[in-house]
Amino acid sequence: MHFTDAYLEGLLVDDCPYDDLTTEGLGIGDTEGVVEAAPKAPGIVAGLDAACRLFELRGARVERLAKDGDAVEAGQVILRACGRASELHAVYKTAQNVLEYASGVANRAADMVRAAKAENPRAQVALTRKHFPGTKPIVYAAVRAAGGIVHRYGLSDSVLVFDQHRVFCASPDAAVARLKESAPERKIAVEVDSIEEGLRYAAAGADIIQCERFAPETVAEFRRVLSEKHPNVVINVAGGVTAQNAAEYARAGADVLVTSWPYFGKPFDVKMRFSCPNPGACK
Amino acid sequence: MHFTDAYLEGLLVDDCPYDDLTTEGLGIGDTEGVVEAAPKAPGIVAGLDAACRLFELRGARVERLAKDGDAVEAGQVILRACGRASELHAVYKTAQNVLEYASGVANRAADMVRAAKAENPRAQVALTRKHFPGTKPIVYAAVRAAGGIVHRYGLSDSVLVFDQHRVFCASPDAAVARLKESAPERKIAVEVDSIEEGLRYAAAGADIIQCERFAPETVAEFRRVLSEKHPNVVINVAGGVTAQNAAEYARAGADVLVTSWPYFGKPFDVKMRFSCPNPGACK
Repeated sequence: MHFTDAYLEGLLVDDCPYDDLTTEGLGIGDTEGVVEAAPKAPGIVAGLDAACRLFELRGARVERLAKDGDAVEAGQVILRACGRASELHAVYKTAQNVLEYASGVANRAADMVRAAKAENPRAQVALTRKHFPGTKPIVYAAVRAAGGIVHRYGLSDSVLVFDQHRVFCASPDAAVARLKESAPERKIAVEVDSIEEGLRYAAAGADIIQCERFAPETVAEFRRVLSEKHPNVVINVAGGVTAQNAAEYARAGADVLVTSWPYFGKPFDVKMRFSCPNPGACK
Repeated sequence: MHFTDAYLEGLLVDDCPYDDLTTEGLGIGDTEGVVEAAPKAPGIVAGLDAACRLFELRGARVERLAKDGDAVEAGQVILRACGRASELHAVYKTAQNVLEYASGVANRAADMVRAAKAENPRAQVALTRKHFPGTKPIVYAAVRAAGGIVHRYGLSDSVLVFDQHRVFCASPDAAVARLKESAPERKIAVEVDSIEEGLRYAAAGADIIQCERFAPETVAEFRRVLSEKHPNVVINVAGGVTAQNAAEYARAGADVLVTSWPYFGKPFDVKMRFSCPNPGACK
């Protein structure tokens, strides 16, 4: 996951489009100082590439003391930036927000990955397109840090048939054959509401059956039938998949746990500690 | 709160940079249909301007059946878009995400506004800069729909002295005088950790004292002392202010409840119901 400078500049300009009235008004802009980022609780960190680059973009010198996906202790310094107060203040809140939101998503996703892989090491946790609009780079960094995967980057990289498509189709059963012809290099995924529907689309040649709001025991039953008839078809589970039921779904035989749950919750607190060896300004 | 087309186009292109492989592959792109947005539970809606414009940008015709801040019933249709399947599918998930995240923030903020204003109709709930990075337009639409205010758009519109500034100052007590000189058209706000510190900065001429993590009873005590000595100084409370304690803080005499709490939580579910009078394609 790469953060472009254009994206990161956008975040900085969002927060400080012109002058930083407080820092400049105090006359402290040129005073040198240090800011250290340290999580308040143990956990996984994410967003470090972005946070480091944000400081660099305004001219601060950065020491990166951890990398995305590292499990760190409470109070462990993960990033240190040195520079003028004007540089540090133009960046620190944005960097903190990126670290806190990315790490919050990463910790919740990592809980799901751990739970699922304890039952089946090949099971994957895939995060959806249902993130806060405009936050893909941060969300994808979090997914990677957690050991998860991206379900779909968007509509142009993958094929997934929903009811919202079938409503337009005179013969929904013809859908898979059409898609296999139009997109022979893509796997064809179909979301279904029942075992019967899933078996019908698997028989029609779907590569992935996405089970919408199946109970874990229904997934297990589907797995048994599907493994006999269509052993290569991938089973996704979607709808209400959380850290609480991830183990159950993995045990039931789901290959991919599709979830938006890690997006909803608190940021992971990261304290930004300032120090200044020679406070000289604002006398 | 205005959403620029450039911003909304960015959201659409994020989700569909090139082709919609599924809709186009199915051959349903030109088939006409309807999508209706309806919340699953009663509550306040937000993000409607953006959602409507998103559909228009791809050529769909839109009926707006509610406006931001309206309290709606479960199942009440708030937006109807008519057009070709290609247009509706290019937009509906992004529109749904905007509506759900904006309305989620709006409902939590509205809970705080109601709680605070029941105690003091002049109290304001002000949302902070600690939102998911890159989401200002959606967040601000939510704040307005809830009857709240924006604490600071960023560093260029307001003056607020934190400890992170004072660490650079040889004489922090000189801060207010300097800022009053450099920014005579702005109110000067200072965040403090104690009543004593608050009184010192109020005496120095601060217009706003932001009480960081004061208990409600400490705010009440501060209010008493401050009203005697500096009756025109505004009291902000910040740090841990939620819907649960908003009434207490308003009752204690806080003028402004500064909070990030509405940002953390679940989106407000909005169902997107598709229909197609003449399913003709994908035979």
